[in-house]
Amino acid sequence: MMHGALQDFALTLDKFLDHAAKWHPETEVVTAREDGSTARIGYAGLNLRARQVSGALRSLGVAQGDRVATLAWNTQEHMEAWYGIMAMGAVCHTLNPRLTAEQLAWMIDRSGAKLLLASADLAELAHSVSDLSDGGSCRVMILGPEAKGPDAFDAVANLAPQDTPWGEFNETSPCGLCFTSGTTGAPKGVTYTHRGNYLHTLKLMQADVTAITARDVVMPVVPMFHANAWGLPFACPAAGAGLVLPGRQADGESLARLIAQEGVTIAVGVPTVWLGLMDYLDATGTTLPSLKRIMVGGAPMAQALMDRIEARGIAVQTTWGMTELSPLGTATPPNSEVRDPRAAGRPAVGVDLRLTDETGTPLPRQRDVEGYLWVRGPAVVERYFGQEESATVDGWFDTGDLARIDHYGTVRITGRSKDLIKSGGEWINPGEIETIISALPCVAQSAVIGRSDPKWGERPLLLVEFREGFSPSDEDLLAELKGKVANWWIPQEVVRLRAMPLAPTGKIDKLRLRNQYCRA
Amino acid sequence: MMHGALQDFALTLDKFLDHAAKWHPETEVVTAREDGSTARIGYAGLNLRARQVSGALRSLGVAQGDRVATLAWNTQEHMEAWYGIMAMGAVCHTLNPRLTAEQLAWMIDRSGAKLLLASADLAELAHSVSDLSDGGSCRVMILGPEAKGPDAFDAVANLAPQDTPWGEFNETSPCGLCFTSGTTGAPKGVTYTHRGNYLHTLKLMQADVTAITARDVVMPVVPMFHANAWGLPFACPAAGAGLVLPGRQADGESLARLIAQEGVTIAVGVPTVWLGLMDYLDATGTTLPSLKRIMVGGAPMAQALMDRIEARGIAVQTTWGMTELSPLGTATPPNSEVRDPRAAGRPAVGVDLRLTDETGTPLPRQRDVEGYLWVRGPAVVERYFGQEESATVDGWFDTGDLARIDHYGTVRITGRSKDLIKSGGEWINPGEIETIISALPCVAQSAVIGRSDPKWGERPLLLVEFREGFSPSDEDLLAELKGKVANWWIPQEVVRLRAMPLAPTGKIDKLRLRNQYCRA
Repeated sequence: MMHGALQDFALTLDKFLDHAAKWHPETEVVTAREDGSTARIGYAGLNLRARQVSGALRSLGVAQGDRVATLAWNTQEHMEAWYGIMAMGAVCHTLNPRLTAEQLAWMIDRSGAKLLLASADLAELAHSVSDLSDGGSCRVMILGPEAKGPDAFDAVANLAPQDTPWGEFNETSPCGLCFTSGTTGAPKGVTYTHRGNYLHTLKLMQADVTAITARDVVMPVVPMFHANAWGLPFACPAAGAGLVLPGRQADGESLARLIAQEGVTIAVGVPTVWLGLMDYLDATGTTLPSLKRIMVGGAPMAQALMDRIEARGIAVQTTWGMTELSPLGTATPPNSEVRDPRAAGRPAVGVDLRLTDETGTPLPRQRDVEGYLWVRGPAVVERYFGQEESATVDGWFDTGDLARIDHYGTVRITGRSKDLIKSGGEWINPGEIETIISALPCVAQSAVIGRSDPKWGERPLLLVEFREGFSPSDEDLLAELKGKVANWWIPQEVVRLRAMPLAPTGKIDKLRLRNQYCRA
Repeated sequence: MMHGALQDFALTLDKFLDHAAKWHPETEVVTAREDGSTARIGYAGLNLRARQVSGALRSLGVAQGDRVATLAWNTQEHMEAWYGIMAMGAVCHTLNPRLTAEQLAWMIDRSGAKLLLASADLAELAHSVSDLSDGGSCRVMILGPEAKGPDAFDAVANLAPQDTPWGEFNETSPCGLCFTSGTTGAPKGVTYTHRGNYLHTLKLMQADVTAITARDVVMPVVPMFHANAWGLPFACPAAGAGLVLPGRQADGESLARLIAQEGVTIAVGVPTVWLGLMDYLDATGTTLPSLKRIMVGGAPMAQALMDRIEARGIAVQTTWGMTELSPLGTATPPNSEVRDPRAAGRPAVGVDLRLTDETGTPLPRQRDVEGYLWVRGPAVVERYFGQEESATVDGWFDTGDLARIDHYGTVRITGRSKDLIKSGGEWINPGEIETIISALPCVAQSAVIGRSDPKWGERPLLLVEFREGFSPSDEDLLAELKGKVANWWIPQEVVRLRAMPLAPTGKIDKLRLRNQYCRA
């Protein structure tokens, strides 16, 4: 009693939508429909809808801690479902529609979700998932105003009360569940918590991170079903920013139309999406005067693409993150002088990084050397869903990434430790070779994998997808590496692919490449 | 075990200085000395010094939860003491050197501090405080490299280890204590907590609040001994921004020299400080090209001053806060289109506001009406130091301010509820009269207080300090109110003051005015 106290205030995600509804009631969430029309709702209206989702879930028997799965693109209905699920204390298990029904059923069986909310265009996949899951005990209901019949979720939500309590639980309660892509090994479930996402949101809102303000209109092309759409469905209402959801369409024409129509100021997605947008703008002579910044991440950015975007007066902000980090790790500040597509910025306060050797021992020097990147912080995984053992060592999580941190603290991801190739007892980092090859104007995408070799143990194999109209000789291609990497790093062989195989998250599927080209 | 987990990460203030030391080691904290020189230290060096302060405190018997008082201006030594005290879990009780020794001794007796760290130029006051406190049991030690003898704190700190554990306590632990000015009634102690200040810092770092970045150099002219210097000694290391501490000197010439020399980009303080700076710049023809923004708060801002600052291409950011809020409540966003000196912006997420009638009942309409302003949030007082009863009602704190919130959510503080004057059974808001009178070019400062009246209960009395060279008639002065307030609000009498009496926090001392002019 002697010391005074400040007020109790649990860091729960319902607060974001309540804040937006009260202080930014008319700021809109806009969804692009497949027919080219848009659906629009203010934060005040969205809040009421989400509260009805909570009421509907309660009437369907969902309790705090229960998992409710969603299978949907970035849409208003998905936003309503997210907040309706999370704010009442249930756990939103997002499913990736690009995975197979078998893969998704496996995940549903792990999470134990008894209810799956799917958008109408994914109803067929949702029912397959349910049928394939243990005993078919997961009920499918269809989101959106068009759904009819006993499985129409809106029919329940429209009649539901709006007074289901929000946020009346511990802030460390789980709110979300996302399985990693599992291109190497079985997928692992990352549990997100209210506190973790709340603090991650406050990180995003910093002036040196996303710097989102109430005057911005933000378009996340990154999906809500993967790593929280980088946290933007939380940060936008928290900042009072408008939110533009592209639905299923991520082609250049659809995105350009949406950006122009809605006055999007910040667009967020993986590099390939912006390649499509730039191609469309170049081909049609379209300009996008409202767009001031593109945030990229999820895959390495090519210098040529960065140059093309910046030539239009649009700033490029590079980032690094992963599912296990909720997901943002580092970001170059908006309007940074560092104009390097490989730079991923510095960590914001609350994210700590260290470099180790391959045994996990911290390197004596942490700057200007390459090392294994470990991370810690309040939004970093400690233990995967359903597992008993910790995913950390001494409080640090091994990202599996290799990185170099320069004198100014700027992080550059140099590769994946699992991709390292051991040749003649020494390590080759395929990431460095890929960066050089992918920067060539003739190359669309490239990958380097290790193939077993009787003499050297492993030797690097280069796989390339060329851009249309290009087909240089192997010699000319490999000559580009001379002087830039050690001679013994240079692959002897080049495999030409019509199309690089991609995993459902959009990354190059190295597991598949290894299975196809490296089996003994 | 079924649900996974994110990492434990306590929101404690040591993390800010550790982050700055690791990621912004060379970014400097610069202190202006009275002889015109500057002291400089990077965040890495400051971190080591603060760790030695913790070691010294431990060797002097200070334990977690103990109060350690400080009596110092904004200086490097004060920064070292702050972090040294707070990071090891002790409570930093800041004392205002503008109060009397008797007032400070009363506060020390309440807090129970057994150690008082004072800067050399405040040694005499510090010893008087100690002598006057209960049994003189509070030991005085002198900060800074020049101090000699047994009371020299540096002599202990320089030999102290740097490995005293930091942050190994619950995040809701107290870290600071600040007594309100007590211009009405006895001072009340506000206890700050690690969690409260951590979340307050993340609020400051938002792009729509202070938007401080690692490229900024911030000069807080607001004192560290009052309401945490608005939280900037936390936000600057957390953002990696440079920090310029003006020490004791807040005159226009000293501030202009420091801003120019250190490339200050954001300066923060009460309006009168900037009046002095503008007068100096006008008189000398000096320009300050680095300065992009001035943040003001603590007192109403005059339109004329705002215009003078903005005419120089320096943006003005208005704010509202109070000691009980840690202290920031609302802020106009940087570069807002709202260019109104009375506007105090919107609350950031985590601060909630509501307007009530005089009984505390929420007004049915919350927009475009005047009401009593209540607030809640994680950095808002729940219970004052040493008190048993809550300072809140239904989880809300009554700020004592009157406010109006417009359609866009922008808050305008219209007065203090305690200053309201009841005349003929109706309320007169002196704040509205003061705003009109203070905006006149002939007026330096004005105050309106209630004087008892046999017929009306109370009538307003206008007290004015004119600017040099001005002396309008009472009639001309009062004529300015006609048509802008109700006729019965207009005072009948004007009192001309050579100098408006100010409380130690720089605000007009209405208690003294009432004692002098309103005693029956």
